[in-house]
Amino acid sequence: MIYFKSDYTQGAHPQILKALVETNSEHTGTHTLDKYSDQAEALIKELIGRPDADVHMMIGGTPTNVCTIAAALRPYEAVVAPRSAHIYTHECGAVEKTGHKIIPMDPVDGKITPELIDKAWIEYEDDHTVLPRLLSISQTTELGSMYSLAELKALRAKCDERDMLLYIDGARLGAALTAPEADFTIKDIADIADAFYIGGTKHGLLLGEAVVLIHDAFKPYYRWIVKQNNAMLAKGRIIGIQFIELLKGGDDSLFYSIGHHMNAAALKVHKIFENIGCNFYSSSHTNQVFPILNKDLITHLQKDFDFYEWAPVEGRDDVMVTRFVTGFGTTTDDIEALAKAVADFEKGQA
Amino acid sequence: MIYFKSDYTQGAHPQILKALVETNSEHTGTHTLDKYSDQAEALIKELIGRPDADVHMMIGGTPTNVCTIAAALRPYEAVVAPRSAHIYTHECGAVEKTGHKIIPMDPVDGKITPELIDKAWIEYEDDHTVLPRLLSISQTTELGSMYSLAELKALRAKCDERDMLLYIDGARLGAALTAPEADFTIKDIADIADAFYIGGTKHGLLLGEAVVLIHDAFKPYYRWIVKQNNAMLAKGRIIGIQFIELLKGGDDSLFYSIGHHMNAAALKVHKIFENIGCNFYSSSHTNQVFPILNKDLITHLQKDFDFYEWAPVEGRDDVMVTRFVTGFGTTTDDIEALAKAVADFEKGQA
Amino acid sequence: MIYFKSDYTQGAHPQILKALVETNSEHTGTHTLDKYSDQAEALIKELIGRPDADVHMMIGGTPTNVCTIAAALRPYEAVVAPRSAHIYTHECGAVEKTGHKIIPMDPVDGKITPELIDKAWIEYEDDHTVLPRLLSISQTTELGSMYSLAELKALRAKCDERDMLLYIDGARLGAALTAPEADFTIKDIADIADAFYIGGTKHGLLLGEAVVLIHDAFKPYYRWIVKQNNAMLAKGRIIGIQFIELLKGGDDSLFYSIGHHMNAAALKVHKIFENIGCNFYSSSHTNQVFPILNKDLITHLQKDFDFYEWAPVEGRDDVMVTRFVTGFGTTTDDIEALAKAVADFEKGQA
Amino acid sequence: MIYFKSDYTQGAHPQILKALVETNSEHTGTHTLDKYSDQAEALIKELIGRPDADVHMMIGGTPTNVCTIAAALRPYEAVVAPRSAHIYTHECGAVEKTGHKIIPMDPVDGKITPELIDKAWIEYEDDHTVLPRLLSISQTTELGSMYSLAELKALRAKCDERDMLLYIDGARLGAALTAPEADFTIKDIADIADAFYIGGTKHGLLLGEAVVLIHDAFKPYYRWIVKQNNAMLAKGRIIGIQFIELLKGGDDSLFYSIGHHMNAAALKVHKIFENIGCNFYSSSHTNQVFPILNKDLITHLQKDFDFYEWAPVEGRDDVMVTRFVTGFGTTTDDIEALAKAVADFEKGQA
Repeated sequence: MIYFKSDYTQGAHPQILKALVETNSEHTGTHTLDKYSDQAEALIKELIGRPDADVHMMIGGTPTNVCTIAAALRPYEAVVAPRSAHIYTHECGAVEKTGHKIIPMDPVDGKITPELIDKAWIEYEDDHTVLPRLLSISQTTELGSMYSLAELKALRAKCDERDMLLYIDGARLGAALTAPEADFTIKDIADIADAFYIGGTKHGLLLGEAVVLIHDAFKPYYRWIVKQNNAMLAKGRIIGIQFIELLKGGDDSLFYSIGHHMNAAALKVHKIFENIGCNFYSSSHTNQVFPILNKDLITHLQKDFDFYEWAPVEGRDDVMVTRFVTGFGTTTDDIEALAKAVADFEKGQA
Repeated sequence: MIYFKSDYTQGAHPQILKALVETNSEHTGTHTLDKYSDQAEALIKELIGRPDADVHMMIGGTPTNVCTIAAALRPYEAVVAPRSAHIYTHECGAVEKTGHKIIPMDPVDGKITPELIDKAWIEYEDDHTVLPRLLSISQTTELGSMYSLAELKALRAKCDERDMLLYIDGARLGAALTAPEADFTIKDIADIADAFYIGGTKHGLLLGEAVVLIHDAFKPYYRWIVKQNNAMLAKGRIIGIQFIELLKGGDDSLFYSIGHHMNAAALKVHKIFENIGCNFYSSSHTNQVFPILNKDLITHLQKDFDFYEWAPVEGRDDVMVTRFVTGFGTTTDDIEALAKAVADFEKGQA
Repeated sequence: MIYFKSDYTQGAHPQILKALVETNSEHTGTHTLDKYSDQAEALIKELIGRPDADVHMMIGGTPTNVCTIAAALRPYEAVVAPRSAHIYTHECGAVEKTGHKIIPMDPVDGKITPELIDKAWIEYEDDHTVLPRLLSISQTTELGSMYSLAELKALRAKCDERDMLLYIDGARLGAALTAPEADFTIKDIADIADAFYIGGTKHGLLLGEAVVLIHDAFKPYYRWIVKQNNAMLAKGRIIGIQFIELLKGGDDSLFYSIGHHMNAAALKVHKIFENIGCNFYSSSHTNQVFPILNKDLITHLQKDFDFYEWAPVEGRDDVMVTRFVTGFGTTTDDIEALAKAVADFEKGQA
Repeated sequence: MIYFKSDYTQGAHPQILKALVETNSEHTGTHTLDKYSDQAEALIKELIGRPDADVHMMIGGTPTNVCTIAAALRPYEAVVAPRSAHIYTHECGAVEKTGHKIIPMDPVDGKITPELIDKAWIEYEDDHTVLPRLLSISQTTELGSMYSLAELKALRAKCDERDMLLYIDGARLGAALTAPEADFTIKDIADIADAFYIGGTKHGLLLGEAVVLIHDAFKPYYRWIVKQNNAMLAKGRIIGIQFIELLKGGDDSLFYSIGHHMNAAALKVHKIFENIGCNFYSSSHTNQVFPILNKDLITHLQKDFDFYEWAPVEGRDDVMVTRFVTGFGTTTDDIEALAKAVADFEKGQA
């Protein structure tokens, strides 16, 4: 079986794992209060050019979203997000569990727009209605699509106008930053967002994300929020150790090379399907590809490949949206095998 | 000023208030554990023909919605509701505050359909997604429209198919039961719903609603849920006393006569605007009327009448959706004054 | 049956009810946004000499405690309270339901001391421990005892030292202010507390309390907190109308005369039991009396009187702590009947 | 510096880490839905002799406590626990955050007794009071002490009598099972508890605990609870892989050998301090030792050793309770160094 199912079906990138092995016998402080976590945090502040930021080593994506949102909002304040957002669809109501409503807006290519924010505010009236106070977007989105720098700036302007905080779920931020059409840097992200995270789990780590808090609304007593929301790791240093290994070396870091590797592999997957005339569910040029495939082709591919049947296409029984994801471990052989399987199917059809 | 703003801008119906005065000096049990609350509960069970139901005297509509939903759901279970539902739009996230997501579906004439329930289930997958477990509808809806008996039965069938509980917010159930086109009785409501409430606040009481729990999922320790959610009234008997006065006398009860009075008054309001060619925002034939009015007419009427400017009409700057509500205290004089004011405006325009 | 069970087994003081009847037919704004609620709020600000305070008309005691605590605290912040506090023992976990731990300290005569606050802080360490941020006390306490002005000032000083907010549950504040040994005024309460409420339910109202927010930590968006916690009353004016009637007239107001009446009646009850050599469970000289009675006397009295068997006495099978409460409706006849019944029992024993 | 501060200041036991390295490049299912987690779960069911149990691979101790308690309780149900319990003192209110009150009882040697459970029930009355429904104890306790088999059975009997669930926090269950005075096996634990967990983090794993659900109250939709409470690990297999390595081999497993190693080391530490006449804060014979040390000795030891100053001793300024913890990596050299340092100090004093 060849795996295109997700970017976290393997363990860690070998270089990451090596760093864990080399530091294993040391005694350090716990709960991310240790020298490695400190170093990782300093490294990130330098990378983004924001010495004023607070950086925390986090255990996973959902806890990072939940803690960061809960840290900033008062009880009656709500989140505006695309209806396709991970926090809305795939976190089992973890944000709502902290008491905060998520106001879902129907997105365009997985993305929210300033107009959609205005529309969300129409529902706001007075003390009978929750107050939209934080915009949560993902970069890349759950559909692999991306906000351009101009789009990010437009959202920032709208948030300023509406007195809203802007939070970016960066589970796949590494893939975004290394996408062919990326016109923004991580410093841009840090300048535009009030808080965001750099995803590790989907980018070669065993586990862990690094959250960056820019706006003061998120900072005070953040660790208390983390502990209270079940998200503090006892041997927390293992997150710091991994992030040091991931980020050290600046432009030559593993962070960028993994991103380039995944995106390049995904582009090849994209072309395989484009070449046979497939349509795609989103504009993604990052490490997730969403071809709309004939069901016979799907059946043919499922013999040797593991990938998602993502969603039905309204009014069409013969096709499905599928999802192919590349990871740090995707090989040239994997891609060639896929190309061959698709070609074989096409021949059989001809 | 003449009031069409809402059905709870006055105190209680005089007959209701009289009952409170007459019983005022008695000593009784507290927290709705008293003879009057017991009598009211027995009266309701008889009225709906369900001796197996649990009935509780409740302090208000939002607490009733919140307690009843929270009583039945496990933490990861969610509510499906129209996006126009009171629990979704006008309770400041009180349901979400208890940890339960509300999945909003775009309604048709304020109403949910079996197809919309199926659509909500498409978002459900596995342990990453909340489990849709309860359908919440309002009768009448927030737009004054109503589900027919056939529509209610279709929702019941869909809930059975999906293993969902069916809850009916009956803040204006009295208006629904006495509507010209009502093809259902309160016994039908009790047979179809797993839980519902009979609204008092918008139907002549000083305060109070009566919740009816049919399905066992709602019943155990319900009073603990009420206390924990701030909704237990110390001198709880005042709810029971009012409901006895409202409901006694069967078909001749104040409950039905208030409903008929409000709906008849609203029908007259409806005709006033229909006669000058207005369109309406909903199909309501109950005590809420939503005429789409010219802004000049609105300005003209605001001099003497209090009513809501409800919502803009997309793409139209010259008109607004308005809301006129009748109550137990709406008089023939009020209606005639409105008719005259509209006629005067029309003359001025001609 | 003669009632000493609680101070809210009757309806409203007749004068209060009269005010509701007289205003019943008027149309006003809703949800305490009406002229009567405005007047009541202004009256209270004048009474306490704090034009800077925010005052809100509240539906009941538990909701007032919950909303006020939740309004001021961040998620990881906790409440210090006596283990006998109403919020700890008798609100079914409503405060904890909002996510805030209550740290219970074993009280002295129902009261917390500065030393107990220091002791609570010993448990505090770091991000693994909740942060004690608010002290909640009751005046009178649940045992009818009172904090002297000096004791209140000592708690205030300790709260300042610890950077804690001081909240006073004033469900029976009227009884406290009119107690024989009261050495404080309502202005003192307003100067010492960061927030407190003036209880209405146990002081002659049908329902309702008036919360006073002094410290800015409680004020912003308080009404949103109220709505989200199920505590907003639709016909909210009925609270304002009652508080105007209760408080108007300054020193001659119903508020003080009810308090004096209840306390005087309770003092007589106290003497009846003191005269036969009873001990008491607390130092109360307010409207709650806690005599420790022989079980035979209890049985004798239960024939004609309704009162609480409060708690067992450790190591004693022959006696029980009982509670006798007086209210606005307690009469001279009630007291004389009790005196006679106790005397009759004593004669029988002799 | 030599470390006696806690049992999780190093990475993983080398054998555990080796298992992670060897499986690193494989693709598997995610979120603990993988073959390794399945194997670990089967291994545990066999170890405890309960094929009917549900076993889940968990990310850490606090999340395990929170999820398991939240899975079983209805909103108004509460937990009884010793006031020294980790869930009460050191989880930043994470349990209360889910809405459940913890009723703290002053323990004896860190332990709860049947009498303390009865005492907790005295506070329970009716719908104004939370319902004590689950007893949470730790084995070993936070003070390193242990419940004997007879004590566990007595608590089980009391729970049965009170209709309470019995949950055991087993963060250090491995240390308990291998203690010199342990008169119970893991099968006894599984027979007595309704749910418990086998701690990994404090027993040689990089991270992870294994929760065992025996009673059906805990089982349904447990994974939804885990996801909603931020506790689902994406690359969840790394917990399963570690537990297989820890538990395989039955009585010869790493699980038991690590426990024996830690306890033997701790016993030597205990004797070092016993020999110089120290008293101890608890009866612990497991891997935590709590000597009460002279402050001069503490200062002397702090030069070369890292350990906790645990708590002051009431009424004594010259001594402190300290805590020394041994782990899988504690060496003979570490112990000998400690013995020498204590002996040196004693000589200096003589």
